[in-house]
Amino acid sequence: MNNFTFYSPTYFIFGRDGEKNTGKYVKRFGGSRVLIHYGGSSALRSGLIDRVKASLEREGLEYVLLGGVKPNPRSGLVYKGIELCRREKVDFVLAVGGGSAIDSSKAIAAGVLYDGDFWDFYQGRAVTEALPIGTVLTIAAAGSEGSPDSVITNENGMFKRGGHGEALRPAFSILNPELMGTLPKYQVACGVTDIMAHLLERYFTTTEEVEVTDRLIEGLLLAMLREGPRAVNEPGNYEAAANVMWAGTMAHNNSCGVGRTQDWASHDIEHELSALYDCAHGAGLAVVFPAWMRYNMSRDIKRFAQLAVRVWGCQMDFARPENTAEAGIEAFRSFLKSIGMPTNFKELGAKEEDIEKMARTACWGDGRSGTIGTFAELGEKDVREIYRLML
Amino acid sequence: MNNFTFYSPTYFIFGRDGEKNTGKYVKRFGGSRVLIHYGGSSALRSGLIDRVKASLEREGLEYVLLGGVKPNPRSGLVYKGIELCRREKVDFVLAVGGGSAIDSSKAIAAGVLYDGDFWDFYQGRAVTEALPIGTVLTIAAAGSEGSPDSVITNENGMFKRGGHGEALRPAFSILNPELMGTLPKYQVACGVTDIMAHLLERYFTTTEEVEVTDRLIEGLLLAMLREGPRAVNEPGNYEAAANVMWAGTMAHNNSCGVGRTQDWASHDIEHELSALYDCAHGAGLAVVFPAWMRYNMSRDIKRFAQLAVRVWGCQMDFARPENTAEAGIEAFRSFLKSIGMPTNFKELGAKEEDIEKMARTACWGDGRSGTIGTFAELGEKDVREIYRLML
Repeated sequence: MNNFTFYSPTYFIFGRDGEKNTGKYVKRFGGSRVLIHYGGSSALRSGLIDRVKASLEREGLEYVLLGGVKPNPRSGLVYKGIELCRREKVDFVLAVGGGSAIDSSKAIAAGVLYDGDFWDFYQGRAVTEALPIGTVLTIAAAGSEGSPDSVITNENGMFKRGGHGEALRPAFSILNPELMGTLPKYQVACGVTDIMAHLLERYFTTTEEVEVTDRLIEGLLLAMLREGPRAVNEPGNYEAAANVMWAGTMAHNNSCGVGRTQDWASHDIEHELSALYDCAHGAGLAVVFPAWMRYNMSRDIKRFAQLAVRVWGCQMDFARPENTAEAGIEAFRSFLKSIGMPTNFKELGAKEEDIEKMARTACWGDGRSGTIGTFAELGEKDVREIYRLML
Repeated sequence: MNNFTFYSPTYFIFGRDGEKNTGKYVKRFGGSRVLIHYGGSSALRSGLIDRVKASLEREGLEYVLLGGVKPNPRSGLVYKGIELCRREKVDFVLAVGGGSAIDSSKAIAAGVLYDGDFWDFYQGRAVTEALPIGTVLTIAAAGSEGSPDSVITNENGMFKRGGHGEALRPAFSILNPELMGTLPKYQVACGVTDIMAHLLERYFTTTEEVEVTDRLIEGLLLAMLREGPRAVNEPGNYEAAANVMWAGTMAHNNSCGVGRTQDWASHDIEHELSALYDCAHGAGLAVVFPAWMRYNMSRDIKRFAQLAVRVWGCQMDFARPENTAEAGIEAFRSFLKSIGMPTNFKELGAKEEDIEKMARTACWGDGRSGTIGTFAELGEKDVREIYRLML
C-alpha cells in the first residue's frame, strides 16, 4: 500500500426533506450572500428551487440565481457565474442539481477568488482557495458532492478537463433520495454506470497488497448490482435510490481508493465522446469501459479474474483464468445493456471517422503529454484501438 | 435506510515515518502548547516519544508529558491530565498510543473546557466542546483515531462507560503501520478482534434495505479474514499491518454504519469483564461475541445466514437456514481461536460467581435503565444467560 493522506470534511445530511434545511447549513458554514446555481427547468418545475429559496429566506440569507447548467457543463457559464458572484459580492456557492451543477459551481467558487483565467485550474494548477460550496444533490452519479474534483467542457474547442483541489470539497452536501423519484430511467442508469466506473477506475491498480480497498470497492459494486437495476426500473423506490446515493458518494470520496494508483484513462477516453457528441457521460462510459477492459485484460489477468469471481459471481477457471476474466467483462456488458445503456458507437451516436481526432486529443490535447492511464499507459495508437473495439 | 448525518473531518496521514511530521500537523490545527499523553514505557523505549518531541521542537511548539495510560484507561489519570492542562495552559492534546491513550486524551480534552465533573460526559451528556486532539496511532484496534467516541473506566466502582460527541473527533491522526511491527502477537490479535466486533455491532441491525452498508461491512470483514492472521503471525509485515490499520479506521468512523440501527450490547457486556478482570477489551470481545450471537440468532436467521454465506463462505442450507447461521458463528469462533484469542470464561480468567453482579451492572449500572442493545433488547436475565454461554 502506498502512503497517503485522506481528508473528507464534507458534512453530509442524508434523507427525506433534507433540502428544507439548506439555509441552516449555509449559515453554519459561513454563507450570507448565496449564488444558487442549477440546471434545467425541472428543478424549478418540481418546486425544489422554491423550497431551497424559502429555507434561505427563513435564515435571512440573500441570494442570486443562475440556472442553465447543461450536462457536460460549459466554460461559458462559469465565466458568467464568476462575474455575477463578483458583482453581487457572493460569499457562498450553492449547487442544486447533479454532477454538472456541482462541477460548474466548483469552477465558479474557485474562479471568483483567482485573478487569472479559471481555466488554469483545468490545466493542472491545483485549487488551493475557493468560496465555500454547498450542494443539494438531485441524482446519484458523479460523486462530486463529496469529492475535490470538477470537470468542465471548454467551449473553445469542445474538450473536457478536470480540476482538483481540497478547496473544492463541498462544506456540506444534502442528499435526499426522494429527489431521484422523478428522473427519467435513462438518466438514473447513466448515474449507476458512472458510479460503477468510479469504482473500477480505482480497482485497476498497479499497487500490490491493497486487500482492504479492493474489498471496499467490490462491496460497493455488489451493492450496485442489486440496487442499481431497482433504482432504474422502479422510479420512486426510495430505498433503492438511497442505497445508490450513498454508494455514489462513497465511490468517489476516495475512502476506497486511498493508498493505490488509480487509472482514469477510461474517463479520459469518454470525455472526448461526451465533449464531441454531447452524450451523457454515463452512457459514454458504458461504451468505453468494457472496451478498455478487453484491450487491457492481459496486463493483469489475476486482477480481472478476481473481479469476475468476487463481484460477478463467475466460476474460477483455474486452468485458464483468462476465461474467467473474459466472463467478468461480458457480465459487466450484459449488466449495462440490461439497464438500458448503449454498448457501441452506433447506439451512442458516435462516428468512426472521429476516432483519429479523439485519440489525438485524448493523448495530446490541452495539458496532456502523449499518454493516459497508469494501470495501462496508453498512447494514441492504443486509444485508437480501444475506440475501434466500440464500433 | 434511516435519515442520518455523517461528518468525519479528521485529517488522516497514513504511511511510513508519519510521526516525524507530528509538529507540522499540530501547528496546522492550531496547537501551540501540547500535552503529549501516552501509555507505557514501550513508546519511550522504542524512541517514538523522542521522534514526536523532536518534531514538535522543530516547529517551535512547547509541550508537557503525561504517560502512564493503562489498557482500560482510568478516570484517575483523566483528572490528573485535566489539572495539568489547566496549570500549563495546554491548548492541544496529542495522544501517542492505541485506543486507551486516545480515549484518555479525549476525556482530558473535553474535561479541560468543562466546569463540572468530566464524568458527566460518560453518563449521557454530549461533548460539544473540547480542546483539539491529534493522535499518533500505534495499534489498529479501537478506531478511536477516527471516531467521536471514548471509553473510560471509573475507578470509583470499576465500571466502563462511553462518552460521545463530534468535538471528540481528532483533528488529525497519524497512522504509521510500521509502529505495529514490535507489538506482541496477542495484542495484535486483540486489535483484530476489536475491529471485527465494531463491524459486527453495526451489522446486526433492525433497519431494512441497507445493502450498501451491509456490503461495506462485509467487505471490511473479508479483508480482516485475510489480513488479520497475517498481521498477527508475521510481526513486521508492513502490508498486513497497513491493511488492518485502514480497516480499523474505516470500521469505526461510521461510514459503514450510517442510516441503520446498531447494537453495541456485546461491547456493554464485555466492558463488565475488562473492568472487573482488567483483561484486554479485544480478548473479552472474543469470548462475548459468539455467545451473544448464539443467544440472539433466532431473532433474524436470514441476517445471520447472509453473514455466514457472504463472509465465512458457508454453503447456504436453503431447507434449514439456521444450520448456515450456526456454521457462520462456529467459523467466527474458530477464526478467533486460530489467532490465539480466548473463547471462554476460564481462558479469560473470569469467574462464574461474578455473573450475577456483572449482568446487574451491565443493565442497571450508572446511567443504564434496565436493558441494553437494539437488535436484541436484552434484560438482566438475558445478559446472565449470555454470560453462562461463555462458561
